[in-house]
This record gives sequence, structure tokens and C-alpha cells, in this order.
Amino acid sequence: MSFVLSDARLLVMLEEDVPYGDITTAGLGIGEARGRATFRARTTMTIACIEEAERLMQLAGCPATHRLAFSGAQVEAGAELLRAEGEAAALHRGFKLAQSLMEIASGIATGARAVLCAARSGRPGVAVACTRKHLPGAKEVMLRAITAGGCLPHRLGLSDSLLVFPQHRVFLGRQPPHLWVARLRAAQLERKIVVEADSVDAALQFAHAGVDTLQLDKLPPEDVAAVMRALADMPRRPLIAATGGITEANAGHYAAAGADLLVTSAPYAAPPADIEVALSPLGG
Amino acid sequence: MSFVLSDARLLVMLEEDVPYGDITTAGLGIGEARGRATFRARTTMTIACIEEAERLMQLAGCPATHRLAFSGAQVEAGAELLRAEGEAAALHRGFKLAQSLMEIASGIATGARAVLCAARSGRPGVAVACTRKHLPGAKEVMLRAITAGGCLPHRLGLSDSLLVFPQHRVFLGRQPPHLWVARLRAAQLERKIVVEADSVDAALQFAHAGVDTLQLDKLPPEDVAAVMRALADMPRRPLIAATGGITEANAGHYAAAGADLLVTSAPYAAPPADIEVALSPLGG
Amino acid sequence: MSFVLSDARLLVMLEEDVPYGDITTAGLGIGEARGRATFRARTTMTIACIEEAERLMQLAGCPATHRLAFSGAQVEAGAELLRAEGEAAALHRGFKLAQSLMEIASGIATGARAVLCAARSGRPGVAVACTRKHLPGAKEVMLRAITAGGCLPHRLGLSDSLLVFPQHRVFLGRQPPHLWVARLRAAQLERKIVVEADSVDAALQFAHAGVDTLQLDKLPPEDVAAVMRALADMPRRPLIAATGGITEANAGHYAAAGADLLVTSAPYAAPPADIEVALSPLGG
Amino acid sequence: MSFVLSDARLLVMLEEDVPYGDITTAGLGIGEARGRATFRARTTMTIACIEEAERLMQLAGCPATHRLAFSGAQVEAGAELLRAEGEAAALHRGFKLAQSLMEIASGIATGARAVLCAARSGRPGVAVACTRKHLPGAKEVMLRAITAGGCLPHRLGLSDSLLVFPQHRVFLGRQPPHLWVARLRAAQLERKIVVEADSVDAALQFAHAGVDTLQLDKLPPEDVAAVMRALADMPRRPLIAATGGITEANAGHYAAAGADLLVTSAPYAAPPADIEVALSPLGG
Amino acid sequence: MSFVLSDARLLVMLEEDVPYGDITTAGLGIGEARGRATFRARTTMTIACIEEAERLMQLAGCPATHRLAFSGAQVEAGAELLRAEGEAAALHRGFKLAQSLMEIASGIATGARAVLCAARSGRPGVAVACTRKHLPGAKEVMLRAITAGGCLPHRLGLSDSLLVFPQHRVFLGRQPPHLWVARLRAAQLERKIVVEADSVDAALQFAHAGVDTLQLDKLPPEDVAAVMRALADMPRRPLIAATGGITEANAGHYAAAGADLLVTSAPYAAPPADIEVALSPLGG
Amino acid sequence: MSFVLSDARLLVMLEEDVPYGDITTAGLGIGEARGRATFRARTTMTIACIEEAERLMQLAGCPATHRLAFSGAQVEAGAELLRAEGEAAALHRGFKLAQSLMEIASGIATGARAVLCAARSGRPGVAVACTRKHLPGAKEVMLRAITAGGCLPHRLGLSDSLLVFPQHRVFLGRQPPHLWVARLRAAQLERKIVVEADSVDAALQFAHAGVDTLQLDKLPPEDVAAVMRALADMPRRPLIAATGGITEANAGHYAAAGADLLVTSAPYAAPPADIEVALSPLGG
Repeated sequence: MSFVLSDARLLVMLEEDVPYGDITTAGLGIGEARGRATFRARTTMTIACIEEAERLMQLAGCPATHRLAFSGAQVEAGAELLRAEGEAAALHRGFKLAQSLMEIASGIATGARAVLCAARSGRPGVAVACTRKHLPGAKEVMLRAITAGGCLPHRLGLSDSLLVFPQHRVFLGRQPPHLWVARLRAAQLERKIVVEADSVDAALQFAHAGVDTLQLDKLPPEDVAAVMRALADMPRRPLIAATGGITEANAGHYAAAGADLLVTSAPYAAPPADIEVALSPLGG
Repeated sequence: MSFVLSDARLLVMLEEDVPYGDITTAGLGIGEARGRATFRARTTMTIACIEEAERLMQLAGCPATHRLAFSGAQVEAGAELLRAEGEAAALHRGFKLAQSLMEIASGIATGARAVLCAARSGRPGVAVACTRKHLPGAKEVMLRAITAGGCLPHRLGLSDSLLVFPQHRVFLGRQPPHLWVARLRAAQLERKIVVEADSVDAALQFAHAGVDTLQLDKLPPEDVAAVMRALADMPRRPLIAATGGITEANAGHYAAAGADLLVTSAPYAAPPADIEVALSPLGG
Repeated sequence: MSFVLSDARLLVMLEEDVPYGDITTAGLGIGEARGRATFRARTTMTIACIEEAERLMQLAGCPATHRLAFSGAQVEAGAELLRAEGEAAALHRGFKLAQSLMEIASGIATGARAVLCAARSGRPGVAVACTRKHLPGAKEVMLRAITAGGCLPHRLGLSDSLLVFPQHRVFLGRQPPHLWVARLRAAQLERKIVVEADSVDAALQFAHAGVDTLQLDKLPPEDVAAVMRALADMPRRPLIAATGGITEANAGHYAAAGADLLVTSAPYAAPPADIEVALSPLGG
Repeated sequence: MSFVLSDARLLVMLEEDVPYGDITTAGLGIGEARGRATFRARTTMTIACIEEAERLMQLAGCPATHRLAFSGAQVEAGAELLRAEGEAAALHRGFKLAQSLMEIASGIATGARAVLCAARSGRPGVAVACTRKHLPGAKEVMLRAITAGGCLPHRLGLSDSLLVFPQHRVFLGRQPPHLWVARLRAAQLERKIVVEADSVDAALQFAHAGVDTLQLDKLPPEDVAAVMRALADMPRRPLIAATGGITEANAGHYAAAGADLLVTSAPYAAPPADIEVALSPLGG
Repeated sequence: MSFVLSDARLLVMLEEDVPYGDITTAGLGIGEARGRATFRARTTMTIACIEEAERLMQLAGCPATHRLAFSGAQVEAGAELLRAEGEAAALHRGFKLAQSLMEIASGIATGARAVLCAARSGRPGVAVACTRKHLPGAKEVMLRAITAGGCLPHRLGLSDSLLVFPQHRVFLGRQPPHLWVARLRAAQLERKIVVEADSVDAALQFAHAGVDTLQLDKLPPEDVAAVMRALADMPRRPLIAATGGITEANAGHYAAAGADLLVTSAPYAAPPADIEVALSPLGG
Repeated sequence: MSFVLSDARLLVMLEEDVPYGDITTAGLGIGEARGRATFRARTTMTIACIEEAERLMQLAGCPATHRLAFSGAQVEAGAELLRAEGEAAALHRGFKLAQSLMEIASGIATGARAVLCAARSGRPGVAVACTRKHLPGAKEVMLRAITAGGCLPHRLGLSDSLLVFPQHRVFLGRQPPHLWVARLRAAQLERKIVVEADSVDAALQFAHAGVDTLQLDKLPPEDVAAVMRALADMPRRPLIAATGGITEANAGHYAAAGADLLVTSAPYAAPPADIEVALSPLGG
């Protein structure tokens, strides 16, 4: 398993949704009735953020919770996921938020796994990473969700990794790649040099300039295959990543073309998973 | 126009993406070159968060920006949206983040407008509101985006509005609705009482108990029409909102059935809009 | 009951008061002595924030606390409210802060209840709401205190409710009210339209323009009564709120004049309630 | 002048009041009309937080502001205080908040100056300090307001100063004061030792134990005078502070009795000052 | 004991070091193995922040911890300090951070105690305070560490204490010291007046102007002794603090010269203490 | 250049040092006098955080600043670094903080450059990275300082890089390295695998297991040389990093032994650089 959102993050979510109390539950006068909330998957899905959903119910005031799955688990339609017991005030304070978080995160996880499975149907063992093009300000929950789906974060941001875009190269003029690759290598000895190429020729040029990873942007699978073939005899060929428009539909083709890694933003826009929450009163 | 994300929120996004500097641009030694970033729409879209994108470029260090559209504007494919000038270090620090924010927010805005237009093709003047089932912790950007698309926030959370769900009613036992409606009215005189009903019969029962708004959950358009007809002669009929699975595909039918308001979560999962960013060096 | 301030808020209070330790207790060398703090009401009062006071003592390091009242309770002079046991270091770290918070919040609650009781002596069942004119930055504790006193928050701010002030109308020129009321209705279908009027004539004009709530600002009770009479035969008359200078002294008159709701800022300036804290050593 | 609240604090206030935009102004469609807000004192008062009020109007989006007074100034009824110009959206976003902040802070400042003036009518040159019993979490604005009124902060909290309460002494058993005074002195050589006494005898005992400041709690002015007389011949007598129930009504008596310093919490509960805000459209 | 860093501060440290999970431990697949981390001193040292180190291990997910020393304790080389048990994921999430915090804080504490001991070898009972010249933004941990070493915070910042630097005096022109000392006294009756002097003559001049504490900056011990002698007969001589370049090497001389207090920044730059952390698997 | 601390971070520093105003400057009544602060290096040093020092003076209220050096610059004793003009209140609010930040950061930068120069005297072109063993919670300023000194951050934390410590290996039992190296490779395809070895034999074993970087911990330079020789004929030998006790004194030996990279924590404990600040009044 990967990591779990901190209480501080979860409390921000609660405060955002319930800044000054739940006036409906209070106005109805039912806050002290005891009850149970039961969360169930309505469809097959990959679960994410269920640990956080459980914690949200606790932070909302439920003294007793019971979790029946974990982030990364595949569950079938109808599977019970989570149970929380407490006063109606606590159940209502937390359940929609817990549901929304789990639905959205599980939707992303399910989408991530779909791309991964499609890719591996093309070639077992291929890896899938997700870009940093998620909703700004929500990196933590986004990375949490895609790792639950079996994908990797591609890069955390601009400070942890080297990735040369065409938008960098416009400032490099006619400098031959081996020059700026050497400069990057000297500047950041410990990090891999990744360069994005948008043609087979450019890719091969960068490969021979000594990059560690070639990121092929919006090339068709045939071109990816061409790059792989051209580099087949290179003693220490770079890692080949395919990116740009990678989805569940074409991931298999890219993998079959030989890419070591697929890089995608598609899972971030996956529809939320459908999770039902039933509340029932508890005698007492 | 509605509201704009504060600098504090935008700086959190920047810090999340670039916590300790941009090591690629620095390593390439191009940080001080001057250049221009030009943002263009690749497809027709409703723009959102372009004011924030412009501000992000300024916060990233660009001394000169020029904005050619506004949140809520409809733009055509190819339209230039934003220009920013500055050192390559500043352009690279900000452009992907500005692009991601604008793409995701504009995608949601475009999705929101699509539902709205579909609804209004069914009945002009109908309103569309979006639920609180967005990504927890991101309410501000989500509301910003859907209002750019012409939709309303349905409720801000649990503290500002009264909405009685079936999950509340399980704690009310056999109390007749007029009793708890009266209790709610006394508790919160200034707020409208909204009650969710999942059948025509329940809806009529709540209507006669004096609720202000009936939220019809997952009823087909025919049932919405039936409720409208049944309440036609009521001197002071409640507002009728249709919710549950409302999308661009069926919004027109619900509007044609007479609903005053459609309540939807669909736009939150809209795919990002496609915005191109080109960088070019500036002589000097 | 309503809502409770989060630990995060309480820790900010503690850090503000004790940023780098309690140098008196440490300098005296008594920090490890065990003792008990006992909080007692010195006068009759309505309690608020006692749950938070208890939590503050725990956050300050007291392992054992015992709470004998709850927010909203009416207590008599001499009543014991709260007991906390722990090391002198923990007791001193927290007790003044817990006392100040409870005194100020209970003062506001007591003031709120005083207005409410005065109002209900004029007409049972009338509601009292408190404005947003509290200390900026302290909305949470202020709403917490007035709800403990039986009052309602009038509006949470500018984002959750519609309230047309004269300061808005200066920008509306000679537009007849029904026009801008219709515009507001179309823009915010789900929210009540509240309009502030400062004369009987204006009030009647707005009433006939279809507003949901009339807020009569600084009208004498007679004028409120006049508005009520004038609207008596209106099939769907708006809710009538009286505001502007409402205090315990005149609340009964306004209520007797027929106002549905009184809106006041008076409780925010109520004097703090008087709560005594006695510390005693515990053998051991 | 003293200090000014930071933008970060002011933005928290704005976000609290207008988290997701001003739906009234937007709904009326008047947001882009240009206008002016003019703040005027309705009564004589001591101004506080006018610099912050001006800054709030700027942060709310007003490009032009003009400030006619400063924190600490005494102004007459009718005096113009502040003018802000901008779009109606900006004026409405900020004016109530700016007004509330200035009214509450100026009320406290006015109350503080009232105690100070009363004290100095008893004996010129006497100082007045305000306790740490303000609303927890609002220390900055509270200290800002009382210093505008000419008073001093008594202590910032538990970390910056030594103040021995009776609640400390219960843990000291029968130790003679000179022992624990010496211990405190050794522990915190650079800080003054303040001890609270609730009788003349105790006061004299502590004085002879070598404390730097005697804080006489709830002694009548006669007793304060008695302490002063008894210590008159002491070569290096401690500073005498009177505390406990000090108000404008009795401050003169305490000062006349000879106290060097009065310590009060009364100003924190002063009623807000009355400041009018008029909005007017600007042609264009 | 003094004070302990709050969970909020510790969580910031954890989030800084492990923002999105520990990819090494996860990638190795060892996260669920159970183990123990044992912290041992490699040299003699004064311990600081061991309570925080223990809490960090708990916050990192270790269910069982055992602490064998406390902040302020002197320990010998080899001494076991702390033990934590839990899953390898939790141990790795926290141990380096706990180690770094304890090493750096204990290094400072050890350095602080070294200066204190050196000073007291010169004259028993002399006090040592540390300046505010620590790393900005890290005041809490710095004060925590130097108090563990037996030193005092000199001043918390600019708001709690009066200290007149030569940089103030350039703005005072030719005003005689007794004038501005009187002005300061009137402005801040409750606080001691500290003035920094950089010559014997200046010191004596300030002493006769009535300051409470003389801070002698970069005077040699002989000059400190000269000041002491010159003031010996003064009925109420000020406290004498020596500052500027005070280290373990010269502290004894300054103390022997008679200074009441030494003020130093040296401990902040002490090398980290050397603490070993061994991890071992636990059968299970 | 690298990155600059955000205003938000700098404001935290200011608020920490001056939470409620500067009572000395205010009490002396000199706040409105105009003056200039001039910062000068007292010794040769590598500058860091001078951009932040300039910004701090602006945030403290100085309208005019002039910066004469940049982070990373080498300056001679006596060099003028920064000038700020404004009211004495603003100068005093900021100068010590700006000085402390610049002194501590420049000390670290100077220390970092010293190790780097020593290393490069052993072998030109060798790189030096600094560990994550800095003061927890201060990563940003620490990385800022060491990069000003020409060093690299070794790793940002646990989320961005793979580094297998002996403390990981205790949980791997007798698994041969190639197995867990392969597992890591599959789990994190895009990141380099770094393994710490504490003997020549272990190093060679890991090298043949396919790691990307060998981190030799506390091996003497001779052993580093032995590893280099043993790997000389390996077609794709790993990067060799030396770590553990690397200082200016031995860095040249390690570099001469052939290490590609030295990894050190020494600069974090460098003594602060000595920077003088002179204040002078400006006529007016």
C-alpha cells in the first residue's frame, strides 16, 4: 500500500463541507438518534481512499467503524465496503463527504487500472505512470488514487526530476543535444534525464545524445515500434516512454509496440465510481 | 462574473508543483532567456479560471501578461487566450500549472454549459445547479468552474441550507411530514426547506406538508411531469428540482417535463478542455 | 446541540497564549505537582463553549476531565461546570484560556438568550437571528455562542444568501423592484430573496415586487405593525424581519408588533459571563 | 503607531465572509457599475484598524482608496474616515467587513481610552494595561485595538512574562515567598517578577520578598492606598498594579490611590463604535 | 521541563519529508514486516527533543514506543534513548526524521550546556541566555533546544521586550539618555529597559540614566570587570549582561569578571549530536 | 539561480519575530524618522538568501531597497550587499531578521562551497550533494542555501527517490540483491536505484545486482578507490557516491579516489557568516 491522507487534509475537507454545523439534522431534532451507515459498491471497481473514508467517519464523530476493503482492492458490485455507527449527527456530518471522496478516488483508481490492464494485455510487465496534469492543489489525493489503481506517479513536479520539453528546446537554439544533455548530467548527476521527442528522428537523435529516457509524445504505435527497432542494437538504450493521448483504448497497442512505460493523464478524468450509502436506525 | 481564487490558493498550487525550484530549466542553463508563452484553445470551449491562469503566470515571475478572454466566455478552436512574457525560468515555472488549471476548470465549465443548453432546449429559462459531490477539498475551484458554465451551486455544504434526504427520514420513524416540516421551519425560519422524494406519491405528500422545494431523485421525466400536473392547482406549489443521473443527454427531457431546476453532478467529471501552450524566445 | 470548534482552532488558541512554554510555572518548579481545576459559574448564565473548554484542558495535557453542563444549558450561580485534573503545568497551561473562552462565549450566549426571551415575551414563537457583524475572523466561535443562546445565524456571509441593501439599490437607478427581483430570482432560484427596507412605503413596494423576506431596518415597532397590517390580506405575504438597534429592551415590542423574526447584533457585545476557576493540589 | 494586521489575516477575514463570491451583487447584475464607499463616524470615537479597513477595501478589489484618519486618532461625530472607489462588486465584497472590523476595534479603542482618561483624571501619568482575557484566537486584533486607545498589553501570554497567581501558590505549600521569588529570579533573570496579591498583608509580604511588581487583585482603592503608604519608605519599592474589576467608573479612584498601573479587561467588552457607510454610484 | 512541539509542527516535518509515501520501502515490498528501531547516543550529550522524536514515531504509525530519557538529560555514549516498534513502513517513515531532529536539537542543547558550564566554572550561578539570532522560522525548536541545555531565551522577538541597540540610537541624535529612558519607561511601565553599550563610558552613562539591564557588546572581560567595579556602590545597579562573541572558550572569563548574565548565539551553530538508529525485524 | 522562498514563508518569519509590533522603536518615539540600513560582508563568503533578505526589508515596510549581490556570489570582506531605506520602524522591524537569515544561509552556502572546492581540488568536475539530514521543517531554506554554495540536494525526501539503506535490508532476510533490485526496478521504472553499502564486498555485490548508484557509507578513500578499480571494466558501472563523514578536510581524498559524487551533511552545521548592518538617519 502507498500512503494515506493526513488528518489535517481530511479536516480541511470536513470544514469545507460543514463549516458551522449541519442545520438540517439539528433542525429535525434527530441528531442524537443512533444509527449505522453502510457503504456498498454498486458496480465492479478498484477501491481508493477507503482508509480515508473510514477516518472521515471517525473525525465526524462516529465511535465505531468497520472497514471491509482496502485501497487497491478490486471489489464486485454489491460488496460491502465500510460500516460506521454513531449518532445521526455524526453519520450525517460525514457520510456524503466520505462517499464523494471514495467515489471520485475509486473512479480514478478504476480508470488507472483499466489503462494498466489494457497495456499489459499488449505486453505483460509494462508500466503505466500518470502525469502531473491533475487538478492543481489536489496532488496528494490524485497520486493516492492512481497508485491504488496500480499506476505510478510520473513526476511529482518540477523539483524532483528532469524532463526536457520542446518548450525548453526553443531556448536552446541550434545547440546539439549532446551538449545540453552533458550540461544537465553535470548539473544533476543523480537524476535520470528524460527528453520528450515528437518524431522518430528526434527520438533517435536524443537517444544518441545519451538521454536516460525518451518520452515519445503523440507518436502512433508504429513509430514507437520504429524507435524500438532502431535502438535495438544500442548497447545501453534509453527507457522508452509513450505519452500523449494514451487511453484504455490504445494502451495495448503502445505496449505491444514495445514501450517500456506508458504515461497518461486519462485516469484523472474517469467518472466517479458508484457507491451507495444506506443509513438505518439502531435500537437503543 | 463570479469570484476568483485567492493568491493564497494559487501559491499552494505553485508550491505543490515546484516546491524547491525547477531543476530542468536551471540545469539546462536557459533560465534567463526571455520568451513568450501563448495559450490557445484547441477546440470550442467555455473558459474558466483564465483570470487565475494569468495570475499564476505573474506569481511565477512573468512581468507582462495579456488576457484575451474571461471566465464564462465561449471561445472557438484556435482562439488565443492568454499571453505571458518573461524569463524562461518564470515561463516554465508556471505554464503547465496554468494550463492544467485552465484545462480542467474549462472542461467542467464546458460540461456545465452543455447540461444547461440541453436543459434550455427542453424549456427556456430552466436553471441548472451542481451538487456538492465534487472532489472534497476543492470546492472553491469546482464552484468557480460550474458558475463559469452558467450553472449554480446547489448548496455550499451542510451549514447553509436545509435538505432532507431519505437518510434523514429513517430517523423520523412514522412522524407525518407536516410535523417535521414545521419543526424545521421553526428552527430555520429564513431558509428554504428542500426535501428529496423518490416517488410521485412521496413528492405529493411532502408538497402538501408545505416544503419549499421538492427534489425528485431518479424519477423519470414522466414522473416529474406527473408531479407537475398534480401540483398545478396548488396555490403555492413548491419549486420542483429534478436530480439523480441528470446529464446532457436527458436534461432536455426533464426540463420539458416542467422541472424548475435540474440538479446534477455530471459536469465535475467532464474531460479537460484542450489548450495548447507554445513557447517562443524573444530577441534581446 | 450545534457544532464544536475543531482541535485545529483550539490549538491555535493555545499556541497564541503559550507559544514557548509557561515560564512562571516552570520557574517556580511546581510543574509536576498534581492538582485539580474546578470551574464554577459565579452568576446565572447560559453556557457556551464548555465542550471546547474541556477539550482545551485535555489538549493542555490534563489526562482527566469531567464536564457537568453543556452548551445551551442555563446554570445557576455557584453551579460547578467543569473539573480537570493533571499536573500543575497542564492546569496552568490551559485554565485561563479555557476560562476566557467560556466566559466570552457564555456572555454572548446569555445575551442572545436575553434577546430571545424578551422577544418571546412579546410573542411566543418569534425567532431571533444574529447578523454577520461579529468580530471578523471569529465567525465560528461567534455562531457557536449565539446558537447556544437559542438564536440563529442570520446569514453566513455573502456567498450563501441574497440580501439586497440600500447600498445595492443605489446602483439600480430607477429600475422598478419587480424587475430586479425577477433578475435575482432567475439567477438564484433556490435561495430566498431578502430585501432591506427603511420605510413602510418601501417595504410595501418590495412586498408587492415578490420578495421572500422583508427586512425592516430601524423602523419603530409601530411601523412594523403597520407593515404587518398592510400585508395581512396578501395571499403569500413575505416573512417580516425587524432589524437595526434590536436589543433586549425593545425586542418584545418588535415581536408584539408581529415581526416573524428579529435580527440583531447586540449579543456580540455582551459582557463576559463570570466564571471562577479554583485550583487545588491533589495529594500524591 | 503600533502594528498592522498582515494581509494574511485580512484575507482570512475576507474568505470567511465571502468564500465563494457575493451572490447578491452578482445576481442583481450590478457588479461592474462604478461607485464610491464613504465611511463616516456617527459618534465621537477613538479610531482603530482604519489602516486595515483601507487594506481590506484594496484586497476586495478597490483600486483607489483614501484614508483620512489613523489608528489612535480621536474623531468627532460626522468625521469622514475613509473613501474607497471601484466597481460595485469590489465595494460590496469589502465594505461590511471593513465596517465591522473598524466598528469593533474602534469600540475597544474608545473603551480603552475611556479607562485611560478616567485613570489620568485621578493621577496624570498613570498607565493602563489590558489583560490577556480577550477572545482566544484574536490576540492580534485585540492588542491592536487597545494600543490604539493608549493602553498597553499587560502580558502577551505565558511565555513572555512572570506572573504568580494564587492558583500557583496553592502548589507552593508553606514555602515563604522569598524562597520562591529567589527561585524565579534565578530561573528568569531578565524578566520582572509580578505577583498577584488579594490582601494588604499578602501584598506587603510579597513586597518584602523582593518582587518587582505587585498586582493587587480586587482590593478597594483604600487598600491600594494603604499598600502605597506602607511601602513609601521602602528604598526600592515594587511597581504597584491594581487589577480586578477596573472600569472607567473606578479607574480614577485607583489612580488617585497611587497605583502605578491599572490592569483591566473591560475594554474588550466595549460596544462597537457606530460607523456609517454610504455607497454612491460614480458616473461613467 | 519546558515545552513540547505541537503535533501540528511535527506533522509539517513529516509531510515535508514524506509528502507522497515512502517509495523505497513500498517498492521493496517490506512495508508490512514488523520491526523495532532503537536509538542510541554515540557520544556523551545533552538530550533535546526526545519527546518529539517519540511522538514522530507514533505519528509515523508505530503503535508502541518506549522512551528512556528526557529533554535536558545528560546521557553517556552508548545509552539507549528510544525504542519504537511497528511495521517497517512506519519505522522507515519516521526514523530518519526523528533522528535528525534529535541530533540537531541535542547538538544545540549540548552546545548550550557547554557554554553554561564554562560560565559557571567562572562564577557559579551566572545565567546564560541565547539570542534571537537563530534560523528564522525555527524559533520554537531552537528555544526548545537551548532550554534543554539549561540556557534561557534572551528575548522572544521585538514584541515582548525592550532592547535599545546602537542602531536605535542613531535616530535619537544628541538626546541625553535619561530623556529617552524616561520615555521608554513611560511607554512600557511593566517591561525592563535593556540598553546595549559598546564601551565602558557608554555603559556608565546608561547606568546612570536608569536602565534596568546593561548589555555590554563585544567588550573584553576586563572592561566588564571595570563596569562592575564602577557600579559597585550604585544603590540600585543595573543587571549586567555580556554579549558579542561569547563562546564556551571565553564564557568563564566573562562570568569571572562579574557579569550577571551572558548572552550568546554560539549554541545555534553547534554540530549535531551523534545518535545511532538500529532497525531489527521482529518475529511474527 | 535556483529558487526563492515565497512571501508566505517570509511572512511567517516576520510574524514569529514581531508578532505584535516592535515596542522598543515605538516606545522611543523614533518610528517615523527616515534612515538607511546598509548590509556589508565582514569576511569572504558565499552569499545565500540575499534576495529573501531584500524582500524581508520590503515586507517590513521599506519602500526602497538596492541589492548588490545575488545568491551564489562570492564576495570579499567589506563588500556592500544590500541597502534599504525607509522609516526607522520599518528598518528595525526587518533588519535583524534579514541579517540572521542571510548570515545563517550564507554560512551554509560558504560551507557547501568549501566542501565542493576541496572535492574538486581532488578531481575536477566531481559533484557534491547534501543529505536530507537538515533541521526538520526547514528543508526549503536549507536546500536554497546549499544550492547557492554549488551543491545539489541529494534527495528531497522519501517520495521522490529510491535509496536502500542497511535498515531496509534487515527486512529482506537472505534474499539475493538481484531479486529485490528487480522488484524495485519493476515498481519504480523511472527512478534510479541507489543502494548504500558499508564494505567493498557489499558494494561489488550490489553493483553486479544492477543498481544505478552505489552509496559507499563511511568507507575510507582507499576502499572507494578499490571499488572504482574493481568496477573499471564493468560495461555499465553504477555511479559511485561516497558518504558518511565527508567534510572539507577529506573531500579531496574521496574525489581523488574516483567517487563520482560526494554526499555530505557537513554544510548544515557551518557557522553563520558574519554580516554587519549599519543604520544611519537620512535628512528630511
